[in-house]
Amino acid sequence: MPEIHALRRDRLRAALATLDADAALITNLVNVRYLTGLASSNAALLVPAEGDAVLATDSRYALTARRECPDLELLVERMAETVLAGLAVERGARWVAFEDHEVTVERHAALEAAARAQLAPLGRAVEELRIVKDDGEIALIARACQITATAFDESIAEIRPGVTEREFAVVIERAMISAGADKLAFDTIVASGPHGAIPHHVPGDRPFEPGDLITIDCGAKYRGYHADMTRTVALGTPAQWQRDLYGLVAAAQRAGIEAAVPGEVLGDVDMAARDLIAAAGHVEHFGHGLGHGVGLDIHEAPMLGPGRPGKLADRVPITVEPGVYLPGRGGVRIEDTLVVRSGSSAPRDVLTMTRTSTPAELLVLD
Amino acid sequence: MPEIHALRRDRLRAALATLDADAALITNLVNVRYLTGLASSNAALLVPAEGDAVLATDSRYALTARRECPDLELLVERMAETVLAGLAVERGARWVAFEDHEVTVERHAALEAAARAQLAPLGRAVEELRIVKDDGEIALIARACQITATAFDESIAEIRPGVTEREFAVVIERAMISAGADKLAFDTIVASGPHGAIPHHVPGDRPFEPGDLITIDCGAKYRGYHADMTRTVALGTPAQWQRDLYGLVAAAQRAGIEAAVPGEVLGDVDMAARDLIAAAGHVEHFGHGLGHGVGLDIHEAPMLGPGRPGKLADRVPITVEPGVYLPGRGGVRIEDTLVVRSGSSAPRDVLTMTRTSTPAELLVLD
Repeated sequence: MPEIHALRRDRLRAALATLDADAALITNLVNVRYLTGLASSNAALLVPAEGDAVLATDSRYALTARRECPDLELLVERMAETVLAGLAVERGARWVAFEDHEVTVERHAALEAAARAQLAPLGRAVEELRIVKDDGEIALIARACQITATAFDESIAEIRPGVTEREFAVVIERAMISAGADKLAFDTIVASGPHGAIPHHVPGDRPFEPGDLITIDCGAKYRGYHADMTRTVALGTPAQWQRDLYGLVAAAQRAGIEAAVPGEVLGDVDMAARDLIAAAGHVEHFGHGLGHGVGLDIHEAPMLGPGRPGKLADRVPITVEPGVYLPGRGGVRIEDTLVVRSGSSAPRDVLTMTRTSTPAELLVLD
Repeated sequence: MPEIHALRRDRLRAALATLDADAALITNLVNVRYLTGLASSNAALLVPAEGDAVLATDSRYALTARRECPDLELLVERMAETVLAGLAVERGARWVAFEDHEVTVERHAALEAAARAQLAPLGRAVEELRIVKDDGEIALIARACQITATAFDESIAEIRPGVTEREFAVVIERAMISAGADKLAFDTIVASGPHGAIPHHVPGDRPFEPGDLITIDCGAKYRGYHADMTRTVALGTPAQWQRDLYGLVAAAQRAGIEAAVPGEVLGDVDMAARDLIAAAGHVEHFGHGLGHGVGLDIHEAPMLGPGRPGKLADRVPITVEPGVYLPGRGGVRIEDTLVVRSGSSAPRDVLTMTRTSTPAELLVLD
């Protein structure tokens, strides 16, 4: 699909015009992929305000680049970014915008030496372009979410007393690969019993026990796009405090999802869920934002957190994932990936639809 | 093992003394892990030239940090690095060394604003410390390598005509997890037939065919430490050019391994293998370095490449991985992870010992 990438580069050129830069030097590899289609561990892209873009990558990716990006001028160079900085100047650029959130101080010094040009911060211009997805991207995210949900449904019977967190993580990770994931979107979190109080717990050797709440946070990656989903289930009959905690988080998640409509302010979506948790006396037990954008990165713009400006728009995939964490006791987090839509039957589509455990109701496993 | 981490911090302090800095602000997360034991996606460590180190991480990792690093002062802060930069100044630091190869231009500006101190580049001081491994680290790398070799041996029967590259990648990745890997060290490469000419080929839908050479580059990760191994096998009777190519690369790998002894110059190890490939007329078909260090990163110092200064030392794990890539035809790469040793029976231990396919001989599968 060279056309879609050329279109994206044109949108970047339009953004460049407001910066008064002669060219953008793109070095964030995910952004290079977004603008060219090339997935690589060493590549850079020069997008002049006027004229054709130039891709640079090393010999390991040269054949792939020629195949995937036939419409781009290609330089096969190990020092991709410094070569392009020099080329920008050769071709008349005086101000080259660089990705200051990605380029290190060390590399910046090398670019300055190579470019003999003024380097100006580009900021997150490409990340801003990436917020609103096209239909092809949404289809890939939906596929990644579907794989994730299927893997969860197929794995849940393996949650039994004595199975360790790590063992179950392996089960669900395998199920995602079997269901079609290219790889994992991130390291699976399986947090049982008191570990549920640790939002990013690394699965360990703790065996599941009757009476545990178990939080599973997992996601598949498919053709570069990510899914993100969390379910909390009960093993054996839950105590009343566990039921109450689940009900609170489920209500907060529902409120957050319902607030996620085109035009809504990001901080207000967060607040819709956070207010419920605060009203129940748990404001200090919900220490992270409500959610985040999902795409070529697992965490990307927009971030949904307290006071965040900016608004949701049509075709923005996000997560909604409130959690309440009680140190020493346990916790609950419930998360779906959804895409905000306008002009469709609903103002958002939830993409992580599991059959076995719906967010609304605590699933109790025997 | 807090003791080992305290010892490592002392070694960093000794390195700091030569820099005339009052403190080091460590922000590379792998380096933070090396110096504290905490694996986290948001943490920073302040190591004053004199006085106790301070770890900062956000609330998600606070419980883990208290458990893993009981000997460290802990700040629970989302903005870990800027808080520590400010603290350094409060405690009297005038020059704070920062990791200029890791800190972005954007974050550097924020640090300068927070620190009101002079920031000086620390360079790769911690990475230099990481080159020589202790026995515990070598044991973990050896375990990761053993898992990788076992998974390869258990998977190889699945290489049959009609199986796709991607399908086989899934087989061997599952086998690594089943054999005890915590995760994959990197995305598995499976490159068959003409794809073998692409050193970093992404496994695709090409089915294996009789007459293929198939290159498999895979590795397990175990408790943070990596393994890296490549084997090239033949499906069906290989052509003479394939046998010749394999024999050349195997001889080059053997020469590289034999050159990997304590005290040898890095560039000379590379040359030992490269000279053989050049003599056979393929110098331009071997476009990467001979190998690299392996540890908490899959690629780390020392790099073995043409003209590299520096010498191998006792207890340095490296890969030796020559390859010859013939565009449009195919390629061969053979790679082992080994650890250079002095004072033992051999000057290196090869850690990736497969039973089914030894580097010396082309394995032909029916």
